[in-house]
Amino acid sequence: MINWKNFDTLASYGKLQSLKGKVCLQEAMAGEAGAARVAKYSAPMAGGLTFNYATREVDDEVIAALAELAAEAQLTEKYEALYSGMVINTGENRLVLHQLCRGQLGIDVINNRVNKREFYVSQQEKAGAFAQKVHAGEITNAAGEKFTTVVQIGIGGSDLGPRAVYLALENWARQNGTLKMEARFISNVDPDDAAAVLKTIDIPHSLFIVVSKSGTTLETLTNETFVRKALAEAGVDPSKHMLAVTSETSPMAQSPDYLEAFFMDDYIGGRYSVSSCVGGAILQLAFGPEVFSRFLAGAAEADALAKEKDITKNASMLDALIGVYERNVQGYPCTAVLPYSQALSRFPAHLQQLDMESNGKSVNRFGEPVDYVTGPIIFGEPGTNGQHSFYQLLHQGKTIVPMQFVGFKENQAGMDADIQGSTSQKKLAANVVAQIMAFACGKKDDNLNKNFDGGRPSSLIIGKQLTPEALGALLAHFENKVMFQGFVWNVNSFDQEGVQLGKILAKKVLAHETDGALKAYSELMEI
Amino acid sequence: MINWKNFDTLASYGKLQSLKGKVCLQEAMAGEAGAARVAKYSAPMAGGLTFNYATREVDDEVIAALAELAAEAQLTEKYEALYSGMVINTGENRLVLHQLCRGQLGIDVINNRVNKREFYVSQQEKAGAFAQKVHAGEITNAAGEKFTTVVQIGIGGSDLGPRAVYLALENWARQNGTLKMEARFISNVDPDDAAAVLKTIDIPHSLFIVVSKSGTTLETLTNETFVRKALAEAGVDPSKHMLAVTSETSPMAQSPDYLEAFFMDDYIGGRYSVSSCVGGAILQLAFGPEVFSRFLAGAAEADALAKEKDITKNASMLDALIGVYERNVQGYPCTAVLPYSQALSRFPAHLQQLDMESNGKSVNRFGEPVDYVTGPIIFGEPGTNGQHSFYQLLHQGKTIVPMQFVGFKENQAGMDADIQGSTSQKKLAANVVAQIMAFACGKKDDNLNKNFDGGRPSSLIIGKQLTPEALGALLAHFENKVMFQGFVWNVNSFDQEGVQLGKILAKKVLAHETDGALKAYSELMEI
Repeated sequence: MINWKNFDTLASYGKLQSLKGKVCLQEAMAGEAGAARVAKYSAPMAGGLTFNYATREVDDEVIAALAELAAEAQLTEKYEALYSGMVINTGENRLVLHQLCRGQLGIDVINNRVNKREFYVSQQEKAGAFAQKVHAGEITNAAGEKFTTVVQIGIGGSDLGPRAVYLALENWARQNGTLKMEARFISNVDPDDAAAVLKTIDIPHSLFIVVSKSGTTLETLTNETFVRKALAEAGVDPSKHMLAVTSETSPMAQSPDYLEAFFMDDYIGGRYSVSSCVGGAILQLAFGPEVFSRFLAGAAEADALAKEKDITKNASMLDALIGVYERNVQGYPCTAVLPYSQALSRFPAHLQQLDMESNGKSVNRFGEPVDYVTGPIIFGEPGTNGQHSFYQLLHQGKTIVPMQFVGFKENQAGMDADIQGSTSQKKLAANVVAQIMAFACGKKDDNLNKNFDGGRPSSLIIGKQLTPEALGALLAHFENKVMFQGFVWNVNSFDQEGVQLGKILAKKVLAHETDGALKAYSELMEI
Repeated sequence: MINWKNFDTLASYGKLQSLKGKVCLQEAMAGEAGAARVAKYSAPMAGGLTFNYATREVDDEVIAALAELAAEAQLTEKYEALYSGMVINTGENRLVLHQLCRGQLGIDVINNRVNKREFYVSQQEKAGAFAQKVHAGEITNAAGEKFTTVVQIGIGGSDLGPRAVYLALENWARQNGTLKMEARFISNVDPDDAAAVLKTIDIPHSLFIVVSKSGTTLETLTNETFVRKALAEAGVDPSKHMLAVTSETSPMAQSPDYLEAFFMDDYIGGRYSVSSCVGGAILQLAFGPEVFSRFLAGAAEADALAKEKDITKNASMLDALIGVYERNVQGYPCTAVLPYSQALSRFPAHLQQLDMESNGKSVNRFGEPVDYVTGPIIFGEPGTNGQHSFYQLLHQGKTIVPMQFVGFKENQAGMDADIQGSTSQKKLAANVVAQIMAFACGKKDDNLNKNFDGGRPSSLIIGKQLTPEALGALLAHFENKVMFQGFVWNVNSFDQEGVQLGKILAKKVLAHETDGALKAYSELMEI
């Protein structure tokens, strides 16, 4: 029997509050005791990754309290309910099934007589078969020439996740001979976004994928019309260059305006949709079906690992729980995501949506206000770039920001140079471990301007190389982390009512149905 | 006589604390009173921009208290001291002269018998003349062919600012026929960053600008060596393809390894260096000297405006003071930067460095700890994209995040489409004003999941179009805002001691001079 209780009604809530400031990182990480923590506080992840949390502010006692919380909040049971087809997104009366895009975790989920995993797989395979025909030159433009570029038109979850994953694997694929087509993205309703893409691609050899679950997303439909007009002006028949990714009930589903349509459904939330056809169409066109399968396999392995009840063997659950401790006990408002990999340049932007849109809530799943803080503010840039930017505040600022580092032992592109006795990749890796220790332990200096207090917590996800499997595992790790945190906070991590009011007011502005300040602003902007 | 006093020792500090929660935005912005605020709380900016702060949590009383603070903290006097050549960066014993790159604000600044403004201008002009020769085909590659691409190798301030400005004007320049060369950027020590650029440019027709003030930046020198190797392998003489931007005393200054060198000096901080040759070389190569001059003119106008003593006529000072009120009185830890312009896609990343590296400090300019919070955490993405991402938390989360919106009436690229009765540009503008009002006023709903509390403060910078002048004004506005905030907080906004410890530890790791946890981490990463 699953109980949905507010976090502050649980016994472990009070227990955790009593453990505030329990671990002094400066002491804990010093000397050989620190080395022992590095060895001990490590958990295996999927895709060959490892989660090291030696420099988070935990010890065995805090971890034991977090394990009690996991049990009391029924995290494992709630996860099982989710992947077994319970209506977890209660506000919208929807199941939450994105994990089924990568694997079968429990019982078959049958909904309206459809086996949902079979449905998602069939659509991924349909998109894969289509991609292979494009690559083989069986599907071509009107002149019988191969398509070379694929452009995704989508926004939010239809953009950030697929874009982050494409960028993460673009150079890996180029190096491994599997970059079949170059991908570009149009998302913003700002006409300069679409214009910039259209002016720099070879339109007659480009395919466009319009991604909108409802088929009614303002920005996406606007950009679609914008692009259709440009195609027609370029003498190209838009219906021969456009694909749809949508739900079967959307107006886009059976339209002759598209060469082909691939489907998802309401049980795949936008920000969780990379592993559905939302990512599957463009990623298979760009990299081929095999690479996408490897990406899904990494995610599936992470999803399976998230079933583990022992939190010290369940990296996503443990990461989630430590994050809750940082937010609700230690009182930190933000978390920085810092991948030491240029390929992950847009991964923080994806996590920013994933986390802030899922758990940036003030009411519980029953619509009642909660008296504790929920999801943190997420931001980040790749290292070492961030070191020369905002790390100053992270090291010496007045607000402590927990950090999630990611680092790899090998590069992707197969190019490196030995300079001053070390390769660039070694320098990159040396920087990430140096930063972790500088943040944790600091360094005393009589000149306080050069003094580092330390006590800045972080964790490190370590991989051999950013492969498709590792990337899938990384993505699913954070999806599952956010899901577990939502369970603890007792919020619905799968709706986003906070985006509605702005949409309604924007329509009023465009219809000139405004008064007061909104009218005044509209006049200032000459709308 | 200038007094450098801690913020909490000023009389206005206590006065401001008594004004906590003074303005209820939901009430203040309702009805015609709200419209009156939109008309009243507006300040002119340079470059044709306007700063509207109707939806910040201020009224006449708060503004009067902020004006008292401005006077008591001697903001105008400190600014004058800065541009007149006082040693404002006391920690490093340096003047702070980036404004002189754009204009003469007060007395001549003579240092070591050099008129500094004349020096900066001479270097900009040298870079401009060089660019014109490249454009005219007078400076070519060994085969006598024109250069088509320019690649900046730099990190931090040598990367983020120039990159943000290039991206902001790339499509404007394309549309206006002034895109002379395409620009690319290599920053990260991750070898995949340089590899990705090198694999996708036409090396024999590319110029590379190595930017490092000291000539010793690890990442930049590593990437320079990496690129030189690739050039040699491509059969190209690196010394005929490489330029230097550095200080006259750096090892790069008189080296025969560069085709030409352009100089700045220690009085231009990295994050404030876009208007020096750090930005001037690449931007003049990309767009030509005239566009860069227009950019500088916009910044110069903003700098001149920042001298105004009446805070209601001094947008950057006012923005700074309201930001202090939000941080130190209202207690908000973060600020979001939300430009409704895809061209400003990397402008938030630049501001993140500018602000967090300048004011993310815990000690005052005398190295004494301060007992109040200083610089906030800065993050942001362009709208409307952010609306489909992290705005959920901004609307309904537990942490209030003040927002800085930027919007324009016209697009840059000259392409637009009328769809459902409005252009994309109108939709974009409608969204920004809708969001501002949704955040300020919210909307009551009995279903608390659909309820919006409102009371989320923001301001809006309005422009006709993102031109070079507008961009220069925007950049200088934020530089000056950060400077004024640093004066209030009594911190040194021009050093960055917080970046040092990580560098030292990274060197130890690479030299294998580690023990304890650092050694353990190094082994995990196989360094």
